Amino acid sequence: MRILITGAAGFLGSHLCDKLLGDGHDVVGLDNFITGSEANISHLMGNEHFTFYKHDVSNYIFVPGKLDAVMHFASPASPNPLSPYAYFNLPIQTMKAGALGTHNTLGLAKASGARYLLASTSEIYGDPTEHPQKETYPGNVDTTGPRAVYDEAKRFAESLTLAYHRQHGVNTSIVRIFNTYGPRMDLEDGRALPNMLKQALLGQPLTIYGDGSQTRSFCYVDDLVEGIVRLLYSQEHMPVNIGNPTEMSILQFAQAINEITANPAGVTFIEHARSARDPQRRRPDITRAQEILGWQPQIDLRAGLQKTLPYFKEKLNLA
Amino acid sequence: MRILITGAAGFLGSHLCDKLLGDGHDVVGLDNFITGSEANISHLMGNEHFTFYKHDVSNYIFVPGKLDAVMHFASPASPNPLSPYAYFNLPIQTMKAGALGTHNTLGLAKASGARYLLASTSEIYGDPTEHPQKETYPGNVDTTGPRAVYDEAKRFAESLTLAYHRQHGVNTSIVRIFNTYGPRMDLEDGRALPNMLKQALLGQPLTIYGDGSQTRSFCYVDDLVEGIVRLLYSQEHMPVNIGNPTEMSILQFAQAINEITANPAGVTFIEHARSARDPQRRRPDITRAQEILGWQPQIDLRAGLQKTLPYFKEKLNLA
Repeated sequence: MRILITGAAGFLGSHLCDKLLGDGHDVVGLDNFITGSEANISHLMGNEHFTFYKHDVSNYIFVPGKLDAVMHFASPASPNPLSPYAYFNLPIQTMKAGALGTHNTLGLAKASGARYLLASTSEIYGDPTEHPQKETYPGNVDTTGPRAVYDEAKRFAESLTLAYHRQHGVNTSIVRIFNTYGPRMDLEDGRALPNMLKQALLGQPLTIYGDGSQTRSFCYVDDLVEGIVRLLYSQEHMPVNIGNPTEMSILQFAQAINEITANPAGVTFIEHARSARDPQRRRPDITRAQEILGWQPQIDLRAGLQKTLPYFKEKLNLA
Repeated sequence: MRILITGAAGFLGSHLCDKLLGDGHDVVGLDNFITGSEANISHLMGNEHFTFYKHDVSNYIFVPGKLDAVMHFASPASPNPLSPYAYFNLPIQTMKAGALGTHNTLGLAKASGARYLLASTSEIYGDPTEHPQKETYPGNVDTTGPRAVYDEAKRFAESLTLAYHRQHGVNTSIVRIFNTYGPRMDLEDGRALPNMLKQALLGQPLTIYGDGSQTRSFCYVDDLVEGIVRLLYSQEHMPVNIGNPTEMSILQFAQAINEITANPAGVTFIEHARSARDPQRRRPDITRAQEILGWQPQIDLRAGLQKTLPYFKEKLNLA
């Protein structure tokens, strides 16, 4: 197949490029490098099965030749209010990537008769009142909140994707991606995992916002990519959660990180405005992924962290 | 002031034109007539304070001269699945009016330094689990449902509007409009009021989907327009509900209509797929409108229906 991936230089996009090239496909990558990084795809330059265009998906997309699949992964995605690359700080670009980018890529899929896959997110569930989250849960998102620029962009993108399926018969699919980690993730993206892993490798106490009872579920990137690719190859149209359902408290998680990295510095509890804004609990119900795709995560947290450590050490100049 | 109104040939847009022209403003109207009607604004042609452009808001908007206010009312809005003009049947146009149309009109307000007013809707609350609905209620909308093309477009539009306020300092406002009725409403728009009023005037029994216990709150258009204009003149940025909080069951409502029209044919109860999809209850909490705008509805259902009857009779050739 010939597959277009937007956001190809992002954390997930670049792993998808690797996986699909490895499966024998031709990949066309798009990225405007606002949050993506050249370093994530520099190893693909010169690969005759990989073509790259520097392009903003909010503008009209013209890609020469026929496409068999279009995967829309372009968007700012960092929830770190302190990062200039966070969606909070790129609010209009984030909404344009979700609305105009989805519209442009759906148009491309329609014109090419291609399979379409939208990268959606667990953020469409907002701060969930149902736990774990099934795909039928309508979510709890405040349209006026600072997170809404990302959440509502993805909610809009889902509805537009299904409108193209129903109205134009485009062969669409939607993956709702939960917390993911692994090599090439943004160390500054503001999520608990990179923050803590960085602190542990530097021998610092791990910062916990609030009392650490809030939970997270972390999926290793290879598991996630396997689930996404199975969805791409399937004929499913309705949203499918892909994530790791093993839930642990932030405190348990911090302890596991300190153990694996042999960090003796312990943890520090901090009251912070952020903790009020972050969802308290988030865990995917992956029944649909199991039934439709025969997929479930294979890599546990310890194994995943071990695979991720070399990348963090290199980025921190500790290698 | 010089005020741009998109959707100027629609039910609400055309009443807004009348009100603002009456208040001494200059009005620039835009409509592509997909769901708007020339008949709604034909009386304004030749008015030197009214300029009209036939234009689709999803395309770039260029309006010569300075604007003091931009009001974005363009969107398909009928929930009647049998109507070719319903948002169900114009799903992509509806999403484009909400996303691209809001983006284009916000850009215009930004360039002109104009006050911006977004027409949002009670539909952003979906099928509410909180009753009545305060502006803080995050809503219960299924992104994958057939109504989502309208609901998510408006949710997206709200978030984008606030992003322009926060990021670019645009002087934005958001009105969440509840059920409204009056002259120039679409007789075929599929809502309970026009359906029943039509049947009553034709001497037919009024159709009630389900058992009639589902409730509605209906606001007469003059009340609504007064609330919207007060919001425009204010400096409020966060969403404000405008609607009539007098709630009644569909059955009570049918009985009131039969009484006012002296229709002896009674009611018929029908089981129908639609009833499962319609929200069961919808009523605005208007505390914010009262406090910020000093606004509340003045026209009760009987008075409003009396003002609406001549229009319905004319449309039904009963005048």
